[in-house]
Amino acid sequence: MVLGSPESCSDPVRCSSLLKDDVLLDAPAQDTSSMEDFIHQSMAVVLEEAVKKATDVREKVCEWRPPEELMELLDLELRDKGESDSKILERCRDAIKYSVKATHPRFFNQLFAGMEPYSLAASFITEALKPSLYTYEVAPVFTLTEDAVLRKMREMIGWEEGGDGIFNAGGSMSNMYAINLARHRQCPNIKEHGSSAAPPLVLFTSQECHYSISKAAALMGIGTKNVYAVPSDDRGKMVPSALQEQIQTAKSKGEVPFMVNATAGTTVLGAFDPLDAIADVCEKHDLWLHVDVIDSVSWNPHKMLMVCLQCSAFLVRDMTSLLQRSHSARASYLFQQDKFYDVSYDTGDKSVQCSRKPDAFKLWLMWKALGSRELEQRVDRALAMARYFAEEIKKREGFRLVMEPEFENICFWYIPPSLRNLPDGPEFWKKLHNVAPVIKERMMKTGSMMIGYQPHGDKPNFFRMVVISPQVSRQDLDFVLEEMHHLGQDL
Amino acid sequence: MVLGSPESCSDPVRCSSLLKDDVLLDAPAQDTSSMEDFIHQSMAVVLEEAVKKATDVREKVCEWRPPEELMELLDLELRDKGESDSKILERCRDAIKYSVKATHPRFFNQLFAGMEPYSLAASFITEALKPSLYTYEVAPVFTLTEDAVLRKMREMIGWEEGGDGIFNAGGSMSNMYAINLARHRQCPNIKEHGSSAAPPLVLFTSQECHYSISKAAALMGIGTKNVYAVPSDDRGKMVPSALQEQIQTAKSKGEVPFMVNATAGTTVLGAFDPLDAIADVCEKHDLWLHVDVIDSVSWNPHKMLMVCLQCSAFLVRDMTSLLQRSHSARASYLFQQDKFYDVSYDTGDKSVQCSRKPDAFKLWLMWKALGSRELEQRVDRALAMARYFAEEIKKREGFRLVMEPEFENICFWYIPPSLRNLPDGPEFWKKLHNVAPVIKERMMKTGSMMIGYQPHGDKPNFFRMVVISPQVSRQDLDFVLEEMHHLGQDL
Repeated sequence: MVLGSPESCSDPVRCSSLLKDDVLLDAPAQDTSSMEDFIHQSMAVVLEEAVKKATDVREKVCEWRPPEELMELLDLELRDKGESDSKILERCRDAIKYSVKATHPRFFNQLFAGMEPYSLAASFITEALKPSLYTYEVAPVFTLTEDAVLRKMREMIGWEEGGDGIFNAGGSMSNMYAINLARHRQCPNIKEHGSSAAPPLVLFTSQECHYSISKAAALMGIGTKNVYAVPSDDRGKMVPSALQEQIQTAKSKGEVPFMVNATAGTTVLGAFDPLDAIADVCEKHDLWLHVDVIDSVSWNPHKMLMVCLQCSAFLVRDMTSLLQRSHSARASYLFQQDKFYDVSYDTGDKSVQCSRKPDAFKLWLMWKALGSRELEQRVDRALAMARYFAEEIKKREGFRLVMEPEFENICFWYIPPSLRNLPDGPEFWKKLHNVAPVIKERMMKTGSMMIGYQPHGDKPNFFRMVVISPQVSRQDLDFVLEEMHHLGQDL
Repeated sequence: MVLGSPESCSDPVRCSSLLKDDVLLDAPAQDTSSMEDFIHQSMAVVLEEAVKKATDVREKVCEWRPPEELMELLDLELRDKGESDSKILERCRDAIKYSVKATHPRFFNQLFAGMEPYSLAASFITEALKPSLYTYEVAPVFTLTEDAVLRKMREMIGWEEGGDGIFNAGGSMSNMYAINLARHRQCPNIKEHGSSAAPPLVLFTSQECHYSISKAAALMGIGTKNVYAVPSDDRGKMVPSALQEQIQTAKSKGEVPFMVNATAGTTVLGAFDPLDAIADVCEKHDLWLHVDVIDSVSWNPHKMLMVCLQCSAFLVRDMTSLLQRSHSARASYLFQQDKFYDVSYDTGDKSVQCSRKPDAFKLWLMWKALGSRELEQRVDRALAMARYFAEEIKKREGFRLVMEPEFENICFWYIPPSLRNLPDGPEFWKKLHNVAPVIKERMMKTGSMMIGYQPHGDKPNFFRMVVISPQVSRQDLDFVLEEMHHLGQDL
């Protein structure tokens, strides 16, 4: 399929010979039909190995190899000479074999899971067409589907009257957008003059918030120290009175509060900050509130809605083009104003990216296929599954909930028989802390399931179970508890 | 394929019935075999419409519809009820039909083009498996292939001794990484304390540079005014003596220069800044030089190497973990230090993203298939094609080069017969300025080809032709010139 020659060209109109600097210019330098054959064959491998086998509950979730061993197996080196198509298909099979199957019914390790066929079909389309979203003229379908999805998402938030938004490469980036819009509203000069002459701006978020807020503060010249970590209660919810106090403290130090970031479903505990009470505090101090219905929201449909990675929307209630004003650079080679169509459909200058993938299309096609009602039922089912799992934990010996779940995250300890008679206290907690890493190691090496663990505050390592996918059954949840006991009973 | 029932479950072990809060928990709520059928059918549509037809030179590059008309055609609204699989497949066909075919041999509108089958197969794999790169345990294959590709890219730059790097969601983000590392080297305190207490940092880039540098400066609290636009010569290359002068000016004003961004292949003219001379200036002033072999490089293999969008690497020569130190936030739920494997393979904390797509894998698989030599030949062929095109322009009446090309960009005017006898002067340039937008409109409506245009400095609108793909033949280039005359001869 490499360098073509006139003889191999299937289109006689395009085939004669002409050399320029010793390079054959006539005829495409690639044989189209063998290219199509390869794509067809690779699709068969993907369907068999990465779809059917990857989602089969009887197969392993992962085929663990330590880094050094996997390096050998994959033969990573990139050489001068290429390889045959059959060799490349073998490499495809190997890559799939040794990859973690995030779509397997027993993958509970992340806040995403499951195989979603409609968004996958949409992914295949966009990968093959390779569109980039910046102007209507190069991505008409994907510009309009993004617009339709953003509108629907705003409607669901309750912003029927309008607003703006954009899909991004992940929720961390959506959070950056929120911070930048809030900052631009507070100090529009920073865009041009930078923050070195600006007052010390500070923002507030709960101590449970996602680490992307710190990352954004570091990258954006705000400084991680200027992110106030507001205390949360023992369920992980921000305490509004503490927020109020911290705002006062900041103001008394001459700092300028500009934003509160609230979290609806924290990463580890799945906690919801009390949005109404926080909104009251924000209103009082004229602060931008992110996540709440006031100002802006980051929403990742690649999580509970199972859209293929990545699918992350930033939504904003503003109707004064703040998104555009905060980020625009007016590149003349893309955003010419003398175009023959309505250039308000050229949305690229709202983004901090240049080329940008049409992730909204995946959600649009899936939504068309399933409808809002089915999406709602899926979320309901996942939450019912989480409640079932929590109740099973309470029933079974050797399991203990970290707290009653209020969302899809169920945090729990497995307590091996040897620790069950120890009294609660430093020795017990210290021993318990070492249990999860060992069970995790055994789980990975067996490949039977995947669940994440972490310490949290003063709590020793515990597991975080997350149920998302409708491909998960009650039996899978029972299996998790039985398998955990099986893997950890001798500890 | 929607809500399953025990009867439709194919795995008897997982099927019995249990209701929780009126939700059926037993058995997966989705019928796996119909899901696989749908994926199989969608793959057939993608292969037929988005691969074969999209790359067929006899088909249109685009099927233009204005926004309002396309909205009607696509029936964008998202409703409560879902649609049948056959209806969704029809929607897939429509989405492809009305999309621009960036892989068509006559798409020259962007700095990316062409169908690359190996990276496409890799895309299909990663879309189906939905991995996210942050820890080795969830993405072992993709962590190691990223590492191998980064190592090879550094080797090609000439950094055999080592270095670091990361793949990002586009070159704009890679440029942000460069700026942040340079800033962190200059003022490590900014990460924690923000830039409001820091000296006014300034960076230098040519006036021809990509707009992502301004966007990054705006987002990162540096300020667009603190990006010095160094004059370039009439070929678009930064003038080193002007750089030297601007650095002196900045210093005399009490500003702190921290970085020079050089460009190897500007967006419009394809100009290469004189890297050696700029490196000398940087060395003299101890400034971070981005792009050059000194400090860091942004490299987008989704452009000339044709990897499926997006595939963008940021590479850095540093061996002191600057990438990690600049961005780390040490999330304990991902980067536990008590794991059972070498956690130096958990590369996620180098990123400003959380979930991150394994874009390097697309380049890795493609490189394995083609080998370095074939990649080199492709670039050589594309440049030979560009030279051929430039010579044809010089030969043909009514065409004029904006300048001799030195890279893959060929900038030129088409001069309609009515303007050919006008003397060079304001009236001629004013009339010429209006030609490209009209030809572009006609081109889009015909769907025969796509080429971008823009004004540049004091030059009126001209076309920018870009040749990348080996699927393009000399006949396609001849066609471009003939079609342009055909579309514009009456103007």
